Formats: sequence, structure tokens, C-alpha cells
Amino acid sequence: MTATNTNFFQPVDAAEVPRFAGHSTFMRLPAVPSAAGLDIALIGIPWDGGTTNRAGARHGPREVRNYSSLMRRAHHVSGIEPFSVANVADIGDVSVNPIDLLDGLQRIQAGIAAVVKEGAIPLSVGGDHLTTLPVLRAIATTGPIGLIHFDAHSDTNDQYFGNNRYTHGTPFRRAIEEGLLDPKRTVQIGIRGSVYDPGEHDWAKNQGIRIIYMEEFVRRGAVDVMEEARAIVGDAATYVTFDIDSIDPSMAPGTGTPEIGGFSTREAQELVRLLQGVRIVGADVVEVAPPFDIGGITAIAGATILFELLCVIAAQVAAAR
Amino acid sequence: MTATNTNFFQPVDAAEVPRFAGHSTFMRLPAVPSAAGLDIALIGIPWDGGTTNRAGARHGPREVRNYSSLMRRAHHVSGIEPFSVANVADIGDVSVNPIDLLDGLQRIQAGIAAVVKEGAIPLSVGGDHLTTLPVLRAIATTGPIGLIHFDAHSDTNDQYFGNNRYTHGTPFRRAIEEGLLDPKRTVQIGIRGSVYDPGEHDWAKNQGIRIIYMEEFVRRGAVDVMEEARAIVGDAATYVTFDIDSIDPSMAPGTGTPEIGGFSTREAQELVRLLQGVRIVGADVVEVAPPFDIGGITAIAGATILFELLCVIAAQVAAAR
Amino acid sequence: MTATNTNFFQPVDAAEVPRFAGHSTFMRLPAVPSAAGLDIALIGIPWDGGTTNRAGARHGPREVRNYSSLMRRAHHVSGIEPFSVANVADIGDVSVNPIDLLDGLQRIQAGIAAVVKEGAIPLSVGGDHLTTLPVLRAIATTGPIGLIHFDAHSDTNDQYFGNNRYTHGTPFRRAIEEGLLDPKRTVQIGIRGSVYDPGEHDWAKNQGIRIIYMEEFVRRGAVDVMEEARAIVGDAATYVTFDIDSIDPSMAPGTGTPEIGGFSTREAQELVRLLQGVRIVGADVVEVAPPFDIGGITAIAGATILFELLCVIAAQVAAAR
Amino acid sequence: MTATNTNFFQPVDAAEVPRFAGHSTFMRLPAVPSAAGLDIALIGIPWDGGTTNRAGARHGPREVRNYSSLMRRAHHVSGIEPFSVANVADIGDVSVNPIDLLDGLQRIQAGIAAVVKEGAIPLSVGGDHLTTLPVLRAIATTGPIGLIHFDAHSDTNDQYFGNNRYTHGTPFRRAIEEGLLDPKRTVQIGIRGSVYDPGEHDWAKNQGIRIIYMEEFVRRGAVDVMEEARAIVGDAATYVTFDIDSIDPSMAPGTGTPEIGGFSTREAQELVRLLQGVRIVGADVVEVAPPFDIGGITAIAGATILFELLCVIAAQVAAAR
Amino acid sequence: MTATNTNFFQPVDAAEVPRFAGHSTFMRLPAVPSAAGLDIALIGIPWDGGTTNRAGARHGPREVRNYSSLMRRAHHVSGIEPFSVANVADIGDVSVNPIDLLDGLQRIQAGIAAVVKEGAIPLSVGGDHLTTLPVLRAIATTGPIGLIHFDAHSDTNDQYFGNNRYTHGTPFRRAIEEGLLDPKRTVQIGIRGSVYDPGEHDWAKNQGIRIIYMEEFVRRGAVDVMEEARAIVGDAATYVTFDIDSIDPSMAPGTGTPEIGGFSTREAQELVRLLQGVRIVGADVVEVAPPFDIGGITAIAGATILFELLCVIAAQVAAAR
Amino acid sequence: MTATNTNFFQPVDAAEVPRFAGHSTFMRLPAVPSAAGLDIALIGIPWDGGTTNRAGARHGPREVRNYSSLMRRAHHVSGIEPFSVANVADIGDVSVNPIDLLDGLQRIQAGIAAVVKEGAIPLSVGGDHLTTLPVLRAIATTGPIGLIHFDAHSDTNDQYFGNNRYTHGTPFRRAIEEGLLDPKRTVQIGIRGSVYDPGEHDWAKNQGIRIIYMEEFVRRGAVDVMEEARAIVGDAATYVTFDIDSIDPSMAPGTGTPEIGGFSTREAQELVRLLQGVRIVGADVVEVAPPFDIGGITAIAGATILFELLCVIAAQVAAAR
Repeated sequence: MTATNTNFFQPVDAAEVPRFAGHSTFMRLPAVPSAAGLDIALIGIPWDGGTTNRAGARHGPREVRNYSSLMRRAHHVSGIEPFSVANVADIGDVSVNPIDLLDGLQRIQAGIAAVVKEGAIPLSVGGDHLTTLPVLRAIATTGPIGLIHFDAHSDTNDQYFGNNRYTHGTPFRRAIEEGLLDPKRTVQIGIRGSVYDPGEHDWAKNQGIRIIYMEEFVRRGAVDVMEEARAIVGDAATYVTFDIDSIDPSMAPGTGTPEIGGFSTREAQELVRLLQGVRIVGADVVEVAPPFDIGGITAIAGATILFELLCVIAAQVAAAR
Repeated sequence: MTATNTNFFQPVDAAEVPRFAGHSTFMRLPAVPSAAGLDIALIGIPWDGGTTNRAGARHGPREVRNYSSLMRRAHHVSGIEPFSVANVADIGDVSVNPIDLLDGLQRIQAGIAAVVKEGAIPLSVGGDHLTTLPVLRAIATTGPIGLIHFDAHSDTNDQYFGNNRYTHGTPFRRAIEEGLLDPKRTVQIGIRGSVYDPGEHDWAKNQGIRIIYMEEFVRRGAVDVMEEARAIVGDAATYVTFDIDSIDPSMAPGTGTPEIGGFSTREAQELVRLLQGVRIVGADVVEVAPPFDIGGITAIAGATILFELLCVIAAQVAAAR
Repeated sequence: MTATNTNFFQPVDAAEVPRFAGHSTFMRLPAVPSAAGLDIALIGIPWDGGTTNRAGARHGPREVRNYSSLMRRAHHVSGIEPFSVANVADIGDVSVNPIDLLDGLQRIQAGIAAVVKEGAIPLSVGGDHLTTLPVLRAIATTGPIGLIHFDAHSDTNDQYFGNNRYTHGTPFRRAIEEGLLDPKRTVQIGIRGSVYDPGEHDWAKNQGIRIIYMEEFVRRGAVDVMEEARAIVGDAATYVTFDIDSIDPSMAPGTGTPEIGGFSTREAQELVRLLQGVRIVGADVVEVAPPFDIGGITAIAGATILFELLCVIAAQVAAAR
Repeated sequence: MTATNTNFFQPVDAAEVPRFAGHSTFMRLPAVPSAAGLDIALIGIPWDGGTTNRAGARHGPREVRNYSSLMRRAHHVSGIEPFSVANVADIGDVSVNPIDLLDGLQRIQAGIAAVVKEGAIPLSVGGDHLTTLPVLRAIATTGPIGLIHFDAHSDTNDQYFGNNRYTHGTPFRRAIEEGLLDPKRTVQIGIRGSVYDPGEHDWAKNQGIRIIYMEEFVRRGAVDVMEEARAIVGDAATYVTFDIDSIDPSMAPGTGTPEIGGFSTREAQELVRLLQGVRIVGADVVEVAPPFDIGGITAIAGATILFELLCVIAAQVAAAR
Repeated sequence: MTATNTNFFQPVDAAEVPRFAGHSTFMRLPAVPSAAGLDIALIGIPWDGGTTNRAGARHGPREVRNYSSLMRRAHHVSGIEPFSVANVADIGDVSVNPIDLLDGLQRIQAGIAAVVKEGAIPLSVGGDHLTTLPVLRAIATTGPIGLIHFDAHSDTNDQYFGNNRYTHGTPFRRAIEEGLLDPKRTVQIGIRGSVYDPGEHDWAKNQGIRIIYMEEFVRRGAVDVMEEARAIVGDAATYVTFDIDSIDPSMAPGTGTPEIGGFSTREAQELVRLLQGVRIVGADVVEVAPPFDIGGITAIAGATILFELLCVIAAQVAAAR
Repeated sequence: MTATNTNFFQPVDAAEVPRFAGHSTFMRLPAVPSAAGLDIALIGIPWDGGTTNRAGARHGPREVRNYSSLMRRAHHVSGIEPFSVANVADIGDVSVNPIDLLDGLQRIQAGIAAVVKEGAIPLSVGGDHLTTLPVLRAIATTGPIGLIHFDAHSDTNDQYFGNNRYTHGTPFRRAIEEGLLDPKRTVQIGIRGSVYDPGEHDWAKNQGIRIIYMEEFVRRGAVDVMEEARAIVGDAATYVTFDIDSIDPSMAPGTGTPEIGGFSTREAQELVRLLQGVRIVGADVVEVAPPFDIGGITAIAGATILFELLCVIAAQVAAAR
């Protein structure tokens, strides 16, 4: 690991200022107005306009910020010190519109595009899973990218409530149709739960998406599964999206569409750690819905997964420097 | 009171079947497929597409149904037995669309229009306050009607988030612009809380809406205020809308936009009882948002206000027979 | 007030031992095995076998004990120091049987009879309201006594679920039938909420019970109402029963049969303070159901009402010494 | 899998009607008045009269119905489409009596007997575990049947609180004594937690019941354990009872007698899926106690286990057609 | 009211940016590093080192910030627009020390002294009530000031747990002893609840403090009581401290020492509005303890009282300009 | 196992007295005033003065007592009957001081010293982890002892908030410095989560402490890890400390410093059972913080771990007799 760059933004030290004190920002980092000068921009997307059942992910960024105060400076397994090897800050929330879906999508895209323009990697906190679509629109401007997708649901359905094409159950179908994702470089891990139809995932599979159901994950384990996942996305640009509902509802109850039998947080951490080596051009944690959370455990899980992702991306930034 | 019409639908008797048993319907009445043959149609509008802050009113009808099992057959003060003097049933929920605002408004209007067509009075449970707009569109088809409006907020703002004209902060401005409401026969009671601008209510007042702020209510009391309210709407057709946030957040915490200093439930009950004599062509209870409720007390309040409204309307039905 | 009897049991002092420390007993008094030597016996009745809807009052004594740690030694208005003028202790819970209603009633009666035999006044914490029936059986052994009854419900129904005569909706009808209560010396205060039938209270009224509905209380106020109540019971032996559901559900949500529009805790305190002068031979606080409580506020209300009752009874004990 | 029988009842489609809309029924199926014409009858048993500690399972059916709206039409692993291969509906709740234990048992038996008479397989949702006794009385009318029993507790105790023989800790002892169960065809899986006596399970073992403690399950795994379980019950008629407290309290906190160290929901799902091949004549999910639930996670677990059981039974129905 | 000073800091507009979006600050004002240039400095004191029972007020500032997003720009009764007539911002939290009481007191004093030095009026959010002592030390540097004190408790005890002189039950005794407060210009309003000793308030009364018990307030009403309060403090410098436990526990359950029978929020608002005319040199809202809050209602009450105080102080600033 | 000593204290039998009845004590054992005559003294330490973030462990003993009513008389795996082979009782809580850290430490030490003096083994319930320091001071009076430490955190930091040396993050550093612990006979199991510095544990490791991170535990399993742990502490006197935050936050959310990826309760039970053979001179369960608990699951976990520890120690007592 390289020596600390003393010009980088640093989080408030909890041994000096207690975790409950001060303004709430991601990882207790400074709040800055833009991604200028950053390697990694932590950003909130407080929007759940695509939610078909239980809304509330609009409140996700605030609570993930609150509980991210529990994070410290270094990763206890990898030893990565993200704030020493990368310039990271909290750039606030993108502009949203809670009552106009299409306008909401455009605002989110614009917000992420501004990050990308500055050369920073966006690491965002949703928001429902439809937020990933405008994020991909902002990132995949020069051709389809790869995707590693942790989720209980494939989110490749076509339409809801008549002919509504944009919901949190459809973003990855839209992203493939729009040429943002390369389905052959897309892998979904943890998929489970009852389906509308036995053939519900046929479209995705026919496109070339690799779906690793929870049952396969349980048989094979994280190391084996992630080896395959890394092989699928290869060396090219890849987005990582972590739907908190991939984690079991007992460990992440605060979400819109819970499905029992999910990842333990321990498994989730191992999966994210095994992302090392992937060329990540952006990542997110989505579907944390605080109104349905209990005791903040979903927000704690979300904040910790965010920290795990940050460490992986920071190591990549350091290696590329 | 007239003798019981034994052909009317009757609620399940809690002295025979405990309140926690059986399918959950409004007041434990039978679930029927349409308003045909009904005097009063209880109906849910599970939609919160116009909510600008904390969504969740989409879950309102379900929880109000659950807690309405606490209601019994007769009003202990007026002696009204609504199920004996009017034919009442639960006709389920209108069709909604949680991700398309304009489609949602149309579906709600169509659902209520079907009730009106059958000659039944719609008594609905929202849903956020924007749901009242399509309800009014379905009811006020032959000219503007009167409105008695219990709320913490005037809901006569113009636009949000750019030029969005349809939110739960704007329905009554739209209704007046559309000729659905007669502003001179419109009275708002319980308005309070900080405002965007000291002149925020000027448009409403200029239209002729009478705003009775909470402070005036406290000074004058329910009897005096309702005498004025009844005078304002007079003998013509009037809609009654009860926003649960008119009640204090300690008694109705499960709502999107709480404002302290609200009505006590006792005051709210008295206000509704004093509606007797108004010619009610429809009524609703809105903004019960169960994800923010605690211990079900908001749903209990909502269910009881619904029962109070039902008694008033049933008495009117009986009187008109 | 007489000087402190230093032989009396004293509560733990919160200025010496914090409220959260030590075993949990009523008012932090010593736990003693029987009522021998006591003037007033605090006792739990953890039983809800008569509950027709939401059970949970079986857990009432434990939580009221927990929150009664908030009580201090003296009443701030009357100046009464109950532990200085009366010997008071926590004698534990009566024996109960959660799965056999009739055996449960007998066990409760036996437990209270043991208190009465020792010459102590039982001040109990339920349990559901059916527990008051066996308490009255243990106390009213020489003829009917008077009753001051704070409640949302008259609890004078006849039968439930076929021909079941013992539920928490029937105790006072049974008590009158059994000659335990003198209906002409019985007053019920705070009755409200929808009823099964407009004539539901006719039996009670025909017996001579005075029902003061909530609406009458609101009009007249506590002083006037309690003057009448004291006149009704006169100088003879009287039992006082306080159903926590007489208090508004926002202030006492943890109960089985909530009815909005209840007493504020402030009103409840005033009512109990106005019991001074009544010859109380026993009292209870019932229907605190912790599984439905939120933030302990119902248990706090129950514990404080218990303290208010204790002060009144202690003053009576002191006056009679 | 056979083609869809278009005459079968179908659940509401969540891609057309959001999950929060409409009346709440099991799996969003139609509510029908009886089991006539059904292959499988979903039925609630809202009764907890046998509960010795924390009551609340009486509210189980309502909340399991609510959260069963999360289920979709097909099983993602087995591909079973229960509503296509079997006629399934929600027939409501059996009649219960919350204050008379023996009457309660008779009502439940009668309710299930009516299902059996129609030739439908009852798949019920409790209620506490004593409800399984009257269910077995209704089913095992021609001789003892087998039992696969998932639970933390053996529930084969003899008496409580004196000589009370009917509690949720005794149903399977009673069922064996009454000749309803063949103890040699009875297997209990997941048993754990402190016991009243080291020999507490001796009676059960002496009868021939096979108890697979949690520790043995952990060593052997679901596949091996269920192979043994299937061998124990063989090809003859077998009842399956799933006590939600077999699942860990962190994943199913809403229950009366929690014991840590339970099944994960993932393990529970695997166990139920491995029931395929058993000849199931009835099944239940019991001890979901919503007043002790948090965030609905117990109800979600209960609803999903209900769906898993439904899929297994539906496949059996289809195979037998 | 003077015209808006366009150089003043302005809150984010909820009609442009939804309330759940963006970093959380008091009233959605900008976060600034110091009080330089401010008229009024909003500041958090996240410290509860003096709490003798239930701690948690250390988390108060964060939650009050969160819920203060519900505030808008203008007061609906007085018309005051605080952000137009005064320069107000959120200067963050003072430095605290959660494990060293004396160091904690010094840090708080230093933090407030820095505000005073800039000429700004500190309007702080605690924190337990002991935090008011170091605030007074920072403000009353030139002689004793007056105090208007809303609380359930007098907080003038002497010692706890042996000879500990600094707890949240003792600050005003210490402040008088230290010459920070003029007891003859000190008034306490809303005092209630059981006391350690009937003479518990004798010291305070002997010093000249005017205690207006809750019962007196109920008899006289807010207008009369506040007329007296304003007369007591007169025209000289006065501090205003608002303990959230002065409000009833049903409306402010999230606090350390709840006492039933408190102010309604409506009464509390009226009391604060009647502070107009007092020369306020600092004010605080203390004892909001989020771990004991339910549904955020205590934080909402705290945030609104903060806004009410802000309006009064801003009007005073404007008048003095 | 030796025959029951009928003179030993026995818990209340839940088949005779329901779990919710009676005063709340550890395991429903008698409350006795001192450790005289006991083999094992169950004792509460309601103190969290060393907590740097979320306080609340002061309330731990009360809730662990409440939920320990779920424990029965015998261990279902080992068959140990602790109350038959050892004399065990609840001796209440040590004296504490919530507002003076150093006085608090002294009081705790004195309380435990009194137990040790009686020759009983203290098995305590915290309280935060700093409470273990004064416990060790009371026990390790003749030289350093060994330690088996289950925790998410090493708790060997040096200073907080300036130069504060006593917090719940520093006890084991202080204990080693004070010669209470032999670092070469100290093993920490389950350590995980982000760290202040990659070298944060260097001091501990340099002292000779063996840290088994969660990741190593997952690889090796409980049997292997505990074999090493037993070898490290050998045959000499050893203390066992169980921080509830070693368990995953989903299973033990009620704690001050949650870290995802923790032990399952099943793993925790196995670990504690594998302590058999260690010479335990004292043990504790710490950091149960009820204000952050949900549904009591943390208290249930704490109570069960307490029972598991009790069984191991009781077996040791029996073996040594």
C-alpha cells in the first residue's frame, strides 16, 4: 500500500470526535460540492420512483450516511486504507424528482454524468434499483460495459401495470436494450424467490446473462462463484451493483421486496472482497428502505457493504496510479 | 332511526367471531365486487404517487381495514346504527398505478366514477391527498361542489420540483382551476405549521376559500367553527375530506407531513359529528401512512374517523329515504 | 401528615441507586412474601384469560414494575408521602393459570383473599379486566360494595362466543349478579366508543349504575364529575378500578381494546386525586398490555396512576390510624 | 408439470395490481366460502388458547395473509406452479373461541373436518401449536398417521399448571395417546434449547418418536436428515407441521417461545423442499405471533414456508391426478 | 418585518429539493465552520454525561437536524421569516467528551464561548440538561442573567450518588451558586411529577425562583402565565431553556425522565410564542433522547420548538437592528 | 452428574408458574443479599460509563433477567443441570455510579470483591466492556490470569478523546498493564470490522495476545479454534468474557458498536460449550444495550449465553467438589 497522501480528504476520527457528533456524511468524510479532484465520489440518490411495492428507498442515503459513522479507516483483512490511497469525499445527493419518473431519471443521469466528467468513480447509495439505469446511462457512454449484480431478483422484467417500462423490476432489461450493458459480460448472483413464471428469466438467459441462483451459490461457495464472475466480466470496464435485498431479510429487513434465504452479511462481505481485480467504473448499494428497517441493521449492512466496495475500488485506484 | 332493513349487509359480530379472525374488510362488512345496490360504498385508494416527502399512504387502506375491526354497530352518542339504515359494503380498492402519476389519477377517477354511476356515495380511504383530486373529478361532473376540509395544510400550492402541478400539496388548487370546487363554498379547518411564504395562502383566500387556522379553532371551539363551516357550504352538494395529519402527530404519527399542535382525536370526533346536516356527496380519510405509524394508533384513528363519517352519511341517507 | 414511621418499608432512593439498577419491584419497594404487617399490598395479577381480542395484559405487572422505578417518594401536589404514612410493599404476583379460565379466577381470588385476611388493602396491577371479578369476590365477602370505575367500556355485557359468561367485557354484570357490587353505588366514568347496540348499556342503567360518558365528562370537568362520583359511593366501602384504556390510545396504546377520544393522562391524574375522601377497600390498574405498548408510555402511565392511587389510599390509611 | 387448468383459482398478478392493493388473502387467491372443489384449502386458525407464555399467535393468520402477497406464481427451483396444477383458494378462518379452551378445540376440529369432508387437503396457518391437535383429530379419523415435525420443542410434555393436559407444549403426547399419530412414524427435527429435565424427551423416545436435535442436523445437513425423515414416515399418510420457532429468533422473532440457534430460513426452505415424495394429508405453519414480530420478518418467513409447503403438496396433487 | 437581506444564509427549498435529500442540517441551512457573521448560531451539543437514568440525549442533535427538514421559511401565525431578518446557519456540534464529565463541561463551555465571542446568539440542541450549565458559563460572563425554564423538573437538586454535584438534576442550583443566574429573575414552568421529598423545591424557592407547577399552568393558561414570566425576567438579558420532557411523554416519549401530565405540543408552542419581548441572549432545546423516541415524534416536537424559538429570537434581532 | 443437592437454590418452575409471572431474577432463581454459601453468583453490573458511542448497556441486567425466564433447568446437549450440581442465586446488581467513571470502577470492583471473598465464582451481566476491568481487578488479586475473549473488537486501544485511558475500547490494555492478565494466556476470538489503523492490533500481538479473526474462525470452525484456545489458557485460572457484539447484529442488534459478519448464535453456543475443561474463575456477558434492541432478541441471546456459561461453570464446580 502506498503511503498516505496527506492532501486527500480524511474522515473525522472517532477517537477524537464521537461517532454521534457532527454533521452526518458518508464515512464522516468532508462534504464537498462536486467530484472535482476526487478519485472516488460518494453520492446519494434519494429516489424510489420505480418501486412497485413498498417505497422508502428515497430515505436510504440519509440513513446509510448516519450509520457509516461506524466505519473506521482501514480494512481489517486486506489492510486497505481507502482514504490514504485515494481521494474520496461525500458530494451530497443528486437532484431528484419524487413525483415525475422520467424527470427523475434524467436528473439522476445528469448528476452522475457530472461525476464521470470529473474523472471520478461514482460510488452511489440508492434509491431503488431503477436508479442504476440512469447511472449506467451516465457511465456507459462509449459502449456496453460489464455488470456484476448481487440481488435476490434478476430485475429484467419487461413491463408493469400495463405498459410501464421503467420500474425497479426492469432496469437491466432496459440497460441491455439501450446498449449500456453487455449481457455476455453480465452476471447475477444470489437470485432467488418465487417468480411470476417459470420462464421469467429466459429473456435474460437468452441474452447471455449468467444467473447464479442462491442454491448454486450455497453449493459452490463465494470463492468459486466469484472466480467465475471475474472471468465473465474479464478485464474490461465493469459496474458493480449491490441490492441490499440480496442479503437475508433478517439481516436487511429494510427493503422493498424481501426474500428469505438470502446471503448472510458474512457471505456478502466475502463476495465483495472477491471483487478485487475487476476493473470497476462505478458501483452502488441500492434498495435500503429505512421506513421498513428495524434497529438500523439494514443501514449498518448497507454502510458496511459500501465500505467494502470503497476499499476494493480504492485499491484499484492506488494500483492504477 | 328507522328499523333495521334486514336486507342490508351486516358486519361480522365481534361477540360471535373475534376481531382478529376472518378476512379483513372495512368495518368487517362483506366484500362485494361493485357498488351496485349500495347506499354507501367503502373503498380503498392505495396510492401515494403525489407524495413529496415520506411515502407510505399506499398502505393506508390495508391497515385501516385491519383496525376498523374495532368498530361496533352503533354510535354511542348519536345512536346511529349505520348498517341498519343504509346499505354499506366494502367494494375493495380502486385500480392504481404506483409508478405513473397521470395513469394513476385516471384509474382512481374511473374507480370512483363507477361508484357514482351506481348511485352510491363513495367513502374512501387513501392514499395521499392527491387522490382527492380524481375523486372530485368523478363526483363533480355537473358543476362545482362545496368542500369541508380538515387538514394541517391548505394543499393549494401551485408547483413542485420545477413545473410539476400534481402533488399532494396542490389538489385543491387544481380542483378549483378545473371547476370541481366552488372556492366560496370551501372551508379548511386546522391549518397550521410553518409555511413556505407568509403569502402562501393568499391565492386560496383570494379565491374565496375560508381558512380556519388551528389557533382560531382553539379559541372558538368545535361547535362554533362547525356552525360557520355548515353555513359556508350551505344546502348544496359538499365533499368532506379528512387528512389524518390534521390530528396531532402524537395521535396520528403515521403520516407523511406531520405538524405538531394538531387536533386531539376527541376534537376530531366532535368536528365530524358536527357535520350532520351537510349534504355529503362523498368523503374520504387520507394520508394514513402505515410505515410511519407506531402501534397502529394512526390506523385506529383513521378507522374511527371513517366510522364517524359513515354514521353521519348513513343518517343522511336514512333521512333522505 | 404524620411523621415517618421508620419501621415502614422504604423504596430504594434513586439519588443513591440509579433507577435502572437492582431487582424490579413496584415503586422499588422491598419484595416480601405476604401482606402480613402491611397497610397496603402492591400485587400483580399477570393474567389475561378473559381477553376477547388482543391479549398481552398478562405481561402488565412486569412492565408496570419496571417503569414504576420512575416514581419518587412524595406527591408534588398533595404532599403525601405514602411510604412514610403507610406500610407498603410488593408482595409479588398472585398465582395464575393462563390456560384454564375458571381455575385462573379461583387462583386470583385466593391470592387476594390472603391479602384481605392480613388486613391489608390490595392495590393490584392486572391483567385484563376480568381479574377484577375474583378480586371483588375476595373483598366483598360481607355484602355488596361500591365501585368507581374509570374505563372506555362499561364491561357489563352478558355473553360472548356462544354462552361464555366470563370475559373482560362482562365482569361487572357478574359482580352485580353475584351480589358483590351495589349497582346504585356504582359509577362508570369515561365510557365511549361504538357499541354493539344502542341499548347495550340499558341493563347497567336499569340496575342503577350511573354511566358518565366521555362527552359528559368533557362538558362538566373532573371536579364536578368526581363530586358526583363521591356522592354516589358515599361513605361505605368502595372499590376503585382503573382501566388503562380509559386513557387515550395515544397516551396508552398498549391495551387490548383501544378507543380514541380518551382521557389525557393529566385528566386521569386529576380524577384519581379527587378520590380523596372515598373509603377505598381495594383498587387496581388493569389492561396494560405491553406487547402492544410503544416506548413504554402505557406502562409509565399505568405506574403513575398506580402511584396516584397509592397516595390517596395511604392518606386514608394515615387518617384512619 | 401439467398445463395450467384454466378453471383453477388464480392469484392476483402483482404486475397488474400492486401487492399492497386489494383485500388480503393467502397468496392473493380468491376468498371462497368452503373447500368444495378445492384440491388444497388454505385456512387460518386464529387461536392461541394453549399458549403458556407469550400469546399472540391468534393474530398469525392475518399477518401471514398480508405478507403472502409477496409470493409469486412459480417456484424458482422446482419450477412448480401450484396454482396451475391444483385448485387452491383461501377459505377463511375456522371458528374459534378465545376464552374457552375445550370449545376452541372443538370448533377447530369441526372447521378442519369440513375441509376433509370436501376431499381437500388442509394447509393451515395457526395459531399456537395446540391447534395441531384438533386438526389431527379431524384428519386421522381412520387410524394413526405419520408426522414430520419441525420445531425447537418436542411438545410432548404431559401437564402444566397443575393438571392441565392441553397446552401448546403437549399436543403430540395427546395425539399419540388418542391414537392420531403413529409414534414410530413420527420424526421431530430441530429440537433444541434448555429442558425442564434431562429425561424430558424420554416418554417420546420410548414411544418410538425419532428426535433429531439441532446439533445432529448441523452435523448431517438437510439432505441426509430428510432422507431419514422420509424413510421414517414411508409411503403412508403423513402430516407436516412447521413451528416457526424452529427457525432462529433473529429470523422469526415473532413467536411465543424463542430459542436461539435455530434453522436459518435457507435451511428451512431446503428442509421443506425435501418433503417431496411424502404423502402429505395436511400441513400447517404455526406459532407466528405478530405482536412479538419486528418488521414483519416472521410473517414473511411464515408466508414463504407456507408457499414452499403449498408447492410440495401441489406437485403431489398433480402427480396423483 | 424588514425586507429580506439577500446575503443571509437561506435554507434549501423543499419545493425544489425534497426534504429527504441532501445533507442533514438544522432547518436545511448551510453548514458553516463558525459563528462569524451570524446573528443566530444553531449548534448541537451531543452529550449526556450528566444523565442519571436513561441516556441517549447525545444522539439528540442528529435527529433534531433530520426532522428539522420539515420546517419551512415562515411562521404561519406571527408571519416571521427568520431567515430573511437574521443571518442564521448551522455551525455543527461543539466538541464533547462522552466519558469524562468535567472535560465535557469545559469543551461545551469553550464551544459556546466561541459563538458568544462572534456576537451571535447561541441556539443549541442538547444533550441532557447539564449541558445548559456550561452554556450559561459561556454566556453569563458579566453577571447573573435571567432564566425562563420549561421543564417537568426543577433540576435544582444538590447531589447524587454520594457527593456528585454535576448531573442533569442539578444544573440550575450550580448556576445560581456560581452567580450565573439571578434566582429572582428565574421562572420554572410546567414542573410536575413525584418528588424525592415534599421540601425538594424549598432551596429553589428560598433563593427566589418562581416555580409554576403544571397544575397552576392548567388553571391559569399560557397567556397569564407568560405575562408573569415576562415580568419576572424583565428587560434584562435572559436565557430560555426548553426541556423536551416538559411536553407530555405521549408527545415526546424520547427523553430520559418522562412524567405524564405534561404540556401538549400546542400549549408548548403557545408558551414559546409568548416569549416575544423577552431579551433572549441564548436558548436551547434539551433532553431529546432518540433511542427512546418512537416514530420520530419527539424529534419533530424538538425541531418545531427550535423553529418557534428561532422565530422569536430572529424577530428580536430584527427589531434591534 | 451428581444427584441434586436439595439444599441448593432452585429456579421457579415454568410448568407451575408461567414465565411472565413473579419478580424478574436471573434464571428465575431466588434473589439473595450476598454470595455467602453460593458456588456461583449471578450478578448485574448496570453501568456503561465507558461507552464511546451508543450507551444503553446500563439497562442490560434488567432485560437479561427478564428474558432469562425462558431458560429451563437442564442443558439439552450436555445434560448438565446447573441448579442441581451447584448452588446458584441472583445476588442483585453491584453498586454503580452513572456519572463518575472512576467512582463507578471502584464500586464495581468492590461489588465483585465481595463475591470473591465468599468463595463464589462471579458470573456477571454488564454493562459495557469496561466493566470487565474492575471485575478483573477484584479477581486477579494474586497475579495475572488467563482470558478467553469473544468479541468483535480487541478492546486494547490506548486512549480516546484526548488522554482518556478508561473506555470500553481499552480494558484489556489496562488489564495487561496492571498485571491482571497474562497476555500469553489471552486469546481473542471473532475480531472483525474496520480498524482505526492497520497496525491497531500490533500492541496486543506484541504482548503475546493471540487474535483469531472472524475470517480464521470461519475457515477453521469452532472445534479447532477452541482446541487452540484451551491450549493457550492451559490449566491455570482463566476468565471468560463474552461481548454480545461478537454475535452478528442481526441476532444481537442491541449493542453499542455493531459489526456485521459476526457469529451466529448457533456458533456462539458451540464456542461456549467448548469451554469445558477450562478452569474458569469468573465470566461475564457484556454490551447488551436494550435501548437499541429489537424484539428482545439481543436479551434472549444474552440470557442464553449466560445459561450456557452457567452450565459449563456448574459442571466445573461439580467436578471439583
